[in-house]
Amino acid sequence: MQIIKLNSFIAALLLTAGVSGLPAQEPEDGVVIRSFFQEALTSYEAYHNLEWLCKNTKGRICGRPQAQAAVEFTRRVMEGMNLDSVWLQPVMVKSWVRGEPEQVRILSEKYGTRELTACALGWSAGTGASGLSGPVVEVRDREQWKKLTEADVRGKIVFFNQSFDPANLSAFSGYGLVYWQRSDGPSEASALGATGCLVRSMNPETDDYPHTGITRYADDVTPIPALALSTRSADVLSARLAQDPELKVFIRTTGKEGPEVLSYNVIGEIRGSEFPDEFIIVGGHLDAWDISEGAHDDGGGCMQSIEMLRLFLKSGIKPHHTLRAVMFMDEEVAQRGGQAYAREAAAQGGKHLAALESDRGVFRPRALGVAGTPDQMKMTEAWKLLFKPYGIDLVNGGGGSDIGPLKGYYPDIIFMGLIPEDARYFKYHHSPSDTFEQVDRREMQLGSAGIASLVYLVDKYGL
Amino acid sequence: MQIIKLNSFIAALLLTAGVSGLPAQEPEDGVVIRSFFQEALTSYEAYHNLEWLCKNTKGRICGRPQAQAAVEFTRRVMEGMNLDSVWLQPVMVKSWVRGEPEQVRILSEKYGTRELTACALGWSAGTGASGLSGPVVEVRDREQWKKLTEADVRGKIVFFNQSFDPANLSAFSGYGLVYWQRSDGPSEASALGATGCLVRSMNPETDDYPHTGITRYADDVTPIPALALSTRSADVLSARLAQDPELKVFIRTTGKEGPEVLSYNVIGEIRGSEFPDEFIIVGGHLDAWDISEGAHDDGGGCMQSIEMLRLFLKSGIKPHHTLRAVMFMDEEVAQRGGQAYAREAAAQGGKHLAALESDRGVFRPRALGVAGTPDQMKMTEAWKLLFKPYGIDLVNGGGGSDIGPLKGYYPDIIFMGLIPEDARYFKYHHSPSDTFEQVDRREMQLGSAGIASLVYLVDKYGL
Repeated sequence: MQIIKLNSFIAALLLTAGVSGLPAQEPEDGVVIRSFFQEALTSYEAYHNLEWLCKNTKGRICGRPQAQAAVEFTRRVMEGMNLDSVWLQPVMVKSWVRGEPEQVRILSEKYGTRELTACALGWSAGTGASGLSGPVVEVRDREQWKKLTEADVRGKIVFFNQSFDPANLSAFSGYGLVYWQRSDGPSEASALGATGCLVRSMNPETDDYPHTGITRYADDVTPIPALALSTRSADVLSARLAQDPELKVFIRTTGKEGPEVLSYNVIGEIRGSEFPDEFIIVGGHLDAWDISEGAHDDGGGCMQSIEMLRLFLKSGIKPHHTLRAVMFMDEEVAQRGGQAYAREAAAQGGKHLAALESDRGVFRPRALGVAGTPDQMKMTEAWKLLFKPYGIDLVNGGGGSDIGPLKGYYPDIIFMGLIPEDARYFKYHHSPSDTFEQVDRREMQLGSAGIASLVYLVDKYGL
Repeated sequence: MQIIKLNSFIAALLLTAGVSGLPAQEPEDGVVIRSFFQEALTSYEAYHNLEWLCKNTKGRICGRPQAQAAVEFTRRVMEGMNLDSVWLQPVMVKSWVRGEPEQVRILSEKYGTRELTACALGWSAGTGASGLSGPVVEVRDREQWKKLTEADVRGKIVFFNQSFDPANLSAFSGYGLVYWQRSDGPSEASALGATGCLVRSMNPETDDYPHTGITRYADDVTPIPALALSTRSADVLSARLAQDPELKVFIRTTGKEGPEVLSYNVIGEIRGSEFPDEFIIVGGHLDAWDISEGAHDDGGGCMQSIEMLRLFLKSGIKPHHTLRAVMFMDEEVAQRGGQAYAREAAAQGGKHLAALESDRGVFRPRALGVAGTPDQMKMTEAWKLLFKPYGIDLVNGGGGSDIGPLKGYYPDIIFMGLIPEDARYFKYHHSPSDTFEQVDRREMQLGSAGIASLVYLVDKYGL
C-alpha cells in the first residue's frame, strides 16, 4: 500500500494525538479511516446522486425503462469519476407490468361495501378485466394453514393475515417469520384450488401503505391473482370477517408477465497496484419495486458502493487488489444480475477475495460484518478498536443474494456486510414510503465510510 | 415491590427460557423489563398522542395559546389514565410574538438583489416596519470575532457564519462549538455598535430550513434585530460577499416581547406504596419553538414520560416510591418551569431521589445514563445485561435543564438520561422540519420502555 497523496487533513492528523491508543496494525490505519469518515461526512455527492436516482428512476423494477435509466445514470456517474474502467455487463431479465390500479373491496350483505388499500404482488396473475369475487378464508399462522384442505379452500380467496411482530427485537427475524405468506402462500393456495389471494403487508407498523414483493408459483400450479393489503386494511378485513364470516371480497388486478428484456449490471473499478486480478467488490442492487423510489432498498446501497471507490480516489490511496463497485440488476425478482456477475467473473479468471453487499437500508450503521473462519475473526479482533470511535462494531456475518453465487466459483471468498439499525427498515420496504426523504445523509455516509474502511483493511492485510 | 397482576404474557415468559442467563438481582427483573418492551412496541397510544400534540399545538412556545392547548391536552391524557393524581403547577412565563414574516435580502450593486431564507431569533428586537440595511461583517470563528473592534463593527450587520462541523462524531459537541454565535453573538455585536445580526443556523446539513432559538442580550446592551439564516442561505451570502464585499443586506423583522403570562407544568403521578414522599421523576418539556411542531424537541420526550407511567399501570406493578411524569413549561426560553417545580417540591417536603429528562430527540436509544458516584455506578454494572437484548448500553451521565434546579434542593439526587442516536437531531432542531413524520414509533418506544425499565430498577433497588 502506498499513500501517494495525503491531503492536508491527513497530514495534519498525522501530527496530532488522534493516532495514539490505536491497537492497529499501523498507526496510519487510524488516520486513513478518519480521513474516509471526514470526507464522507462533509460531502454531498452520494446523497445528491441518490436523490436523482430516486426521483428520476422511481419504480425501476427489472425490465422497465426506469431500470434502464438507472443503468445509464450510474454508468454516467462512475464515468465521471476517473476510475480505471466502467462497463455494462449484459443480463437478460424477466419483465412484468402492473397494469391498471388494483381494486379490492369488501362486499358484505350486512355491512355494505368497503374499499381496501392493496397492490398486486410482483409476477402474480391478473384477474381479467371483470375481476373476481369470492368468500374469504382467513389464515393466522402457518400451523393453521397446514391443516386446511382443498375442501376448506377451493373456490375461495385465501387471506394470509399473520402479523409481523413489532416486538421482535430483530426486524429481519420478524420478517423471516412472516415471509412465507408472500413467497409461498399464493402458490400453496392455488394448489388447494383458491381463486385468489390476499396477503397482509410485511410491515411491523399499522399504516396505509401496501408492500409488494415477489411471489413464486410452483411449476405444477396455476398462477392466481395475489395482492398485498396494507396492514390497516388487513385489520379492517379481519374485523369485518369476525362480524360477517359470509362476506365476499372483490379483487381486480391486471398485472401480467411480459417478454424477457436485455438489461445490465453496472461495474466500476480501480485496478489493483500489485494484484490486479484479485478482486474485492462492494455492491448494491439497482432495481427497486415498481411502486417505490427504492431509496433504502437499495438505491442507498448502490450509492455507498460508488462512494467507496470515490473515497479511495479522493484519499490518493492505491489499493493492492482491484476494487469494484457493482450495481446488480434484478435482485428483487430472479437475481439474474448476481448470477451473471459470478459466471463472468469465473470465465474471465482471476480471483474474488471478498465481497460486501449493502442491502439492509442505509440507516445508522451498528456493525460491519465479516463472515470469516475463527482464525480470520481473530485477525479482525485487532480492527475493532479502529471502528469504535464511529460507534460501529465488527461482528461475524455477511452475505447477500447478489454476491451469494460467487461462493460457487470461489469457495474461499469472504463475505462481508453492513449492519445498520433495523427499527425502520420494514416500515418502508417495497412500499411507496421508501422515499429519498427517509434517508439521512449522515447515517448513509457513516455506512459508506465504514465500508471503505473495511475494504481498506482487507486490501492491506488480507484475511 | 409486589407484582399484583401479571398479564398472561409475563406469566408465559416466566415459564420459558428467556429468563436464564440474566445476572440480575432477581430473575423477575428480566421478565418485567421484557414486558415493558413488549407493551411499548405493540401499542400506539404514545405515538398517536404525539401526533395530536404536533398537529394541534404546533408552535407552542411559552406564552402562546398553543402552549396552553398543550397543557390542556396532556392534562386530559393523564386524567384518562387512572393515575393517583394529575395537576397543573402554575408558572409565570415570558412571551414574545414573531410578527410578520421576516425578510432578508442581499442588495448588491454589481449582482442585484437576492432573497435569503431566515427567521428571527427568539426574543430578538424588531427592525421597525421599514426594516434596515447596512454593510456586512462576516465572522468565521470566535478567535476572529474576538479581534474585531467597534471600528470594524459599528453601523454594520454582523454575519456569524461558523459552520456546524458535520464530521464531528458527537452532534451535541458539534452544537456546543457553534452555539455561542446564537446565544451571545447578537449581544456582543450590539455592544460593538452593530445595527443587526445574522447567524448561520446551527444545522450540520446544508438545506433551506432556518433554525431559531433563544438569544440573550446583556443588561447593559441595546437589543438589536437578530435572525438565523438557513445554512444554504448562509453559504449564498458568504459567496456573494467574496464577490462583492461592498454589498448591503436588508433585514426586516417585527418580533417583540409581550407581557408575562400565567402558564403551567403538568404533572401526573403514581403514589409509592412504601415511600409516598420519596419521588422518582421523568420529564420532558412541553414548550416548542414557534416555527416548529416540536416533535423530537420535545413532544417525544413528554410522551415518553407519560408512557413510563402507563407501562407501570399496565404491568400492575406498584412502585415503592412515588413516580411522576412532569411536562415542564418554558425550557426553551428561561427554564421557569424547572425552577418552579424544584421550588415547590422543596416547599412541600419529601425527597426527590432521582430524575430523568428526555430532551435529545426520540431516536433509537443507544444508552441510558446514570450520573452516579463510582459506588453507584458499580451497582448499575449488574443492570447492564438486562438492557443488552435491546441494544441499549448503561453509561455514566444524565441531567437536563429542567431537572437541573432540583440539585440545589436535593444535593444527593441522581440525574439520569436517555441517550439516543444523534445523527439526525440537529437537522430538525428548532426548525420547521422537526415534524411528527420524522419520529419513528418503534424508535421512540424503545426509549419509553428503556426509561420505564431504569425507573423500575431504581425504584426497586435504590442507588
